[in-house]
Amino acid sequence: MAQQVADRRDVDFVLHEQLNVEQLSKHERFADFNKKTIDMVVSEARNLAIKELLTCQKEADEQGCTFKNGTVTVPEVFHKAYALFREGEWIAMCDDPDWGGQGMPSAVALAANNYFNGANFPFMLHNILTHGAGKLVECFGTDKQKELFLENMYTGIWGGSMLLTEPEAGSDVGALTTKAVKNDDGTYTISGNKIFISSGENDLVENIIHPVLARIEGAPDGTAGISLFLVPKIWINDDGSSGEFNDVVCTGIEEKMGIHGSPTCSMALGGKGQCRGTLLGKENKGMSAMFVMMNEARLHVGMQGFSCASASYLNALNYARTRIQGKHLLSSAKDAPMVPIIQHPDIRRTLLTMKSYSEGMRSILFYIGLLEDRVKISEDDAERTRYQALIDVLIPVAKGYITDRAFEMCSHGIQVFGGYGFTKEYPQEQLLRDCRITQIYEGTNGIQAMDLLARKLSLHNGQSFKNLLDEIRKTIDTAKEISCINNFALILDKAVVKLEEVAHNLGETVRSENIMMAFANAQPFLDVTGDIVMAWMLLWRAVVATQKLEQKPKKKDLEFYDGQLKSTQFFIHTVLPVSNGKMEAMLFNDTAVVDISEAAFGSK
Amino acid sequence: MAQQVADRRDVDFVLHEQLNVEQLSKHERFADFNKKTIDMVVSEARNLAIKELLTCQKEADEQGCTFKNGTVTVPEVFHKAYALFREGEWIAMCDDPDWGGQGMPSAVALAANNYFNGANFPFMLHNILTHGAGKLVECFGTDKQKELFLENMYTGIWGGSMLLTEPEAGSDVGALTTKAVKNDDGTYTISGNKIFISSGENDLVENIIHPVLARIEGAPDGTAGISLFLVPKIWINDDGSSGEFNDVVCTGIEEKMGIHGSPTCSMALGGKGQCRGTLLGKENKGMSAMFVMMNEARLHVGMQGFSCASASYLNALNYARTRIQGKHLLSSAKDAPMVPIIQHPDIRRTLLTMKSYSEGMRSILFYIGLLEDRVKISEDDAERTRYQALIDVLIPVAKGYITDRAFEMCSHGIQVFGGYGFTKEYPQEQLLRDCRITQIYEGTNGIQAMDLLARKLSLHNGQSFKNLLDEIRKTIDTAKEISCINNFALILDKAVVKLEEVAHNLGETVRSENIMMAFANAQPFLDVTGDIVMAWMLLWRAVVATQKLEQKPKKKDLEFYDGQLKSTQFFIHTVLPVSNGKMEAMLFNDTAVVDISEAAFGSK
Repeated sequence: MAQQVADRRDVDFVLHEQLNVEQLSKHERFADFNKKTIDMVVSEARNLAIKELLTCQKEADEQGCTFKNGTVTVPEVFHKAYALFREGEWIAMCDDPDWGGQGMPSAVALAANNYFNGANFPFMLHNILTHGAGKLVECFGTDKQKELFLENMYTGIWGGSMLLTEPEAGSDVGALTTKAVKNDDGTYTISGNKIFISSGENDLVENIIHPVLARIEGAPDGTAGISLFLVPKIWINDDGSSGEFNDVVCTGIEEKMGIHGSPTCSMALGGKGQCRGTLLGKENKGMSAMFVMMNEARLHVGMQGFSCASASYLNALNYARTRIQGKHLLSSAKDAPMVPIIQHPDIRRTLLTMKSYSEGMRSILFYIGLLEDRVKISEDDAERTRYQALIDVLIPVAKGYITDRAFEMCSHGIQVFGGYGFTKEYPQEQLLRDCRITQIYEGTNGIQAMDLLARKLSLHNGQSFKNLLDEIRKTIDTAKEISCINNFALILDKAVVKLEEVAHNLGETVRSENIMMAFANAQPFLDVTGDIVMAWMLLWRAVVATQKLEQKPKKKDLEFYDGQLKSTQFFIHTVLPVSNGKMEAMLFNDTAVVDISEAAFGSK
Repeated sequence: MAQQVADRRDVDFVLHEQLNVEQLSKHERFADFNKKTIDMVVSEARNLAIKELLTCQKEADEQGCTFKNGTVTVPEVFHKAYALFREGEWIAMCDDPDWGGQGMPSAVALAANNYFNGANFPFMLHNILTHGAGKLVECFGTDKQKELFLENMYTGIWGGSMLLTEPEAGSDVGALTTKAVKNDDGTYTISGNKIFISSGENDLVENIIHPVLARIEGAPDGTAGISLFLVPKIWINDDGSSGEFNDVVCTGIEEKMGIHGSPTCSMALGGKGQCRGTLLGKENKGMSAMFVMMNEARLHVGMQGFSCASASYLNALNYARTRIQGKHLLSSAKDAPMVPIIQHPDIRRTLLTMKSYSEGMRSILFYIGLLEDRVKISEDDAERTRYQALIDVLIPVAKGYITDRAFEMCSHGIQVFGGYGFTKEYPQEQLLRDCRITQIYEGTNGIQAMDLLARKLSLHNGQSFKNLLDEIRKTIDTAKEISCINNFALILDKAVVKLEEVAHNLGETVRSENIMMAFANAQPFLDVTGDIVMAWMLLWRAVVATQKLEQKPKKKDLEFYDGQLKSTQFFIHTVLPVSNGKMEAMLFNDTAVVDISEAAFGSK
């Protein structure tokens, strides 16, 4: 049976050979997670993903969700999958075992998530939302709130959502108008309307706990006046028993391009004036609570996009190995046999593009997971700050850059199948449709680019971004000493120098009166930063591969390591020159984007 | 009312100011098509497109086609649209009036098609297939065949299709196995199975005339043994009366990502041994007949893709002008008003990207149309050959490059809408889904890239490609004399020199033992050739715009011309440096794509 969803050899390579995740088990917190346990976790996740989630991917897409009289029915097949997912205790993989979590390292959980999301990412949205809402309770809840809600959420008895977006407050969260009025008993009466709420309503769970962003009467305008509330669909009494329906109603679901298994709900709170919530965290500190969750959420969206690309690549590879069409370009004989299309240069180019991006993305995401684990166990403040800053700088890359590239890879994955790729006979078109949302939600990729430019580049006076470049240079220095990859290292080195120049210029511009120009370059800056982080990860992989090749591995491993070198070679020789061109353009600093008048964009 | 589907000002600019299409009316053939008539044709097409085709775009997508017992039902709303389309005599716009055509210049028909395809391209597929099949009859049919079929096809009483692809013969047409056996009466008995047949069966018309590629018993293998046949769904007797059902049966339709209004049929010919056809053209010359039609078909696919992008741009522009979200970046005041998102730099960058590509694509396509018209009326053999060669070189750009970029533009068009872009509330997601097929059918874009590299680059010993560069240089020379765009001209000039170097290297490589390497670079070569053709068209527009600006136009025109300069400036300053990087990568000639072993692509 061909590899599906994610190449296990490559998953193992990143976990064990590139990142040495099992080193974490030296620390008490992760003592249970030696190599054997990690492998077992990944194998179990993979089994569940391939046997249960992948098999209902298409059916759920076709069936979609239905809305009737305020209730939402998810695809029938999700019920069995959800029961198994809960049973396997996969919802809170990294969280506190005292609350029903598994206490796993993030890097390992990401490997499991690679399989889960690649197999059925619309299904996974339910679990991710539940986990995210639970995490808010864990981080900001009172002891009572935790006691009432947390374990039931982490074990999936109850679901969760996140009520943030409003019709007139999308990217501009500060414009939200949902209102909270304090009651005598300390609860708040909530009223307002929210849209685009994933899992806002569904029939997988008996109760749904909604974190809701709202403005307390009299609070300041903008983001400074936003508070976070916990609003259960069914009120939970102080003794843990279920109370009455809490006047939070789904008024409809969106018809969408993809993620049909995930209901995107419009929610009305307090239509009858009877919606109550409890404050989660402090008054007017809702946005900072959101920010705490943001890294995790955005990393996860990167994982969703990447997982679509990873699955699309394996499908394309398997197809190209078996689809017979045309003769080999070097066979001139009239009776030369037809060959599998993997032998045609244009298909090989497409596959190698998909391979190198898939591999680089996997490394970036798992690496960020490892950094998160290190933050958790580090006992040195400076070290922990440094890890955290690396995460902060890399998050826009993980979300914005990766999902942009993932969408392109899914499109390549259609193209390898030719006409079949456009049909629903193969999963390729669904992967593309599902993947497209990842560029939009959890902060559009334009927002990610602005985050990198305006917040992350100047974080700790620019030191955090410099630290990232230092990390990259460490790998370059190691690679310089290895003759067969020394050339790759030199090319990347030059690109890093140029990126530094670009970053410096942008950093100056963003603080100048030309701020519009800086933001006009935000997206290309994210693009080239991502390219260079990608090249770094691939060079790192090449370092490991050359070390392993010296140990004369068996044939299968030899081919795998050679494939690592080829991905790196391809990316550095054919993608980095293009990144270089993008940086040249940024240094040129063309002003058309800012200068063009609104009328000149076109007739009204 | 905002502009929809295509910006009329820009359509007029290309037709009248850039290309001076009305000059064609000096020739007898196009004498009727003075400026007034051209404008009337475009206005009528636009009205029909916006009032009748656009209004049923979404409904047709939702309803799709249904298959039952061999019959195919197209969306109900298409019946009225089809009646109006036929009534307007839009099917054979450029064809011989003696057979029901309108005798229009291609450039004008393309403008009409820009509106039709942008409004509802799945609907248009029916008409395009009918026209293409009719054109085959016109070009290769006997007088009798023309008499029996042509007028009924060009006027849409009957439909047409094209039965080419088979399950094992997709990109490799020469592998097809559909068989033809000659009967005593001169007809052929046809048997075989075809797939991916657009409009192979539908309820819009009473008869469907299928051109079918098949191999006559005993004919050579490969493309050299393929003949073309005319196979009507209902047999047409010599006196023009309808005969019996001709044993050509639709066995099913594909479920697809998009173009839901267009049935993609599997067809069984001669399941009961009773399918007859007449030879169209000469025995074993089916492929050359196909090649004659190919330019027109591929140009049309480019138009389909571009039209999606053009519509997506206008939708995004209109949305960005009215969607209020966030404050202006330069307003620091707490109570600064929220602004339309067109004022945000990232949105402006996206819109200017979409604008410059839309405009450049429109110019490329209309220009090729004009060349076709010149071929038709030219009385000088050398001149005609030169025009035809320019068309031949540009067709892979029109089909491959344009549809690749169009898909990207449609994706940008979703992004501008944020979460709304992913919903079916707006047409953006459908435009992307529909657009995706254009990269695949009528020769995948990989095939287009190989066509440019292996056929077009060496056409007339490379003279045709050189002629293209000469044309580009004429515009550059003109632009060099205009001070405010002289700088753009110099940058493009350098890029053309580099393209020449790249083309020279590839031309050498493709004839060497490194042929695999040349083909591995086919796609990037198409990319950069397309970029430079795009930059040429934009520079040409800038030349016209500067000339017009000297004439002190009114405010609205002034803004339009300034918008032209901004598109050119943006493309040349920010896209050409990236093309330059792509060319650097090609000159580096990395071999990983060719060298990597099949096993190294990943585990089985």
